Amino acid sequence: MEALKEKILNEGTAIGKDIIKVDGFLNHQIDAKFLERIGREFAARFADCRIDRILTVEASGIAIAVGTAPFIGYPPVVFAKKATPNTMTDGQFEVQAKSFTKGTVSKLVVSEKYLKEGENVLILDDFLAYGGASIALAELVAKAGGNVVGIGAVIEKGFQGGAEKLRSKGYRVESLAVISGIEDGRILFEDEEEIKTEDKEDE
Amino acid sequence: MEALKEKILNEGTAIGKDIIKVDGFLNHQIDAKFLERIGREFAARFADCRIDRILTVEASGIAIAVGTAPFIGYPPVVFAKKATPNTMTDGQFEVQAKSFTKGTVSKLVVSEKYLKEGENVLILDDFLAYGGASIALAELVAKAGGNVVGIGAVIEKGFQGGAEKLRSKGYRVESLAVISGIEDGRILFEDEEEIKTEDKEDE
Repeated sequence: MEALKEKILNEGTAIGKDIIKVDGFLNHQIDAKFLERIGREFAARFADCRIDRILTVEASGIAIAVGTAPFIGYPPVVFAKKATPNTMTDGQFEVQAKSFTKGTVSKLVVSEKYLKEGENVLILDDFLAYGGASIALAELVAKAGGNVVGIGAVIEKGFQGGAEKLRSKGYRVESLAVISGIEDGRILFEDEEEIKTEDKEDE
Repeated sequence: MEALKEKILNEGTAIGKDIIKVDGFLNHQIDAKFLERIGREFAARFADCRIDRILTVEASGIAIAVGTAPFIGYPPVVFAKKATPNTMTDGQFEVQAKSFTKGTVSKLVVSEKYLKEGENVLILDDFLAYGGASIALAELVAKAGGNVVGIGAVIEKGFQGGAEKLRSKGYRVESLAVISGIEDGRILFEDEEEIKTEDKEDE
């Protein structure tokens, strides 16, 4: 998605060798207008699928999921929670999500009422890095007896191998921008020669 | 907002004397179509204001803020975080938010880049109970030198006094549905006689 790559180059920052900071439009401050373009793009990528539900995980996945729903017929959106709220009094599906970055394991829960047997579920998130969160979300769908039609990420950090891992498990992965690496503070995209960027610190 | 009251009665559940469970359309599963009605209603309520930015707090406020932005000209949306992410390398505004329910205090942070002096900020959230989160968000705006044009809540639990507290501090509060109490499992709304509801457990 060219507009997204441009947005990442213009407004994003690379930190060190593996962190892409896009908190100006995606996961702290959100550009709600641009979110519509993201939603339309996911809708186009998965236009061949029947989608009964979108599943994501709090917090930064919520905007992506809610922003995509209007373009695929407003299926119910559900976000997995990282803790069991006091209002979740019914049964719940629970899985362990491994964070390869932090080396931690945390739980993700979804009420049993909001994932159903036989449903076609689209998993969406802002980032796909090592794939720990997506794998956990797919496990939640499996526990409910649903079917993962695909996994969509706004930004994939291709050099961290999550997409490859997911594809080897049989999942379809669609990433709107794939970053192949960071070199000297420059963000490089897959399938392309290096794109020159200026220092983003001042923007 | 009549449609919201109906939605709460039809799809919500009261637990005990003070918990309203609306996880079927607002804060776990999200009805993205209904979210547009919520957004339009906030836009109408604050139509007399210039709004430069929407501020909310993760996680369940995000859908509300993102869903409202299109109806007020797509101002930037920013959500306060409950922990400092490793990508927040610049300065940050930080306040303490008191949870009157849990008796705990937790921090809320926003990058200094995403709250600016002189801006007119609309604070939005899913629930207004004791007002702890809204007060903390207003303090963040004040730290940045901005101006709170109003505080909007989808559901106000009127019996917990948050709106009164905020209004006594001079803030304008707009709640789309005000619940005055729970009686024998029935949700009662302000300004109205009791509305009969059936047992919602089976829905």
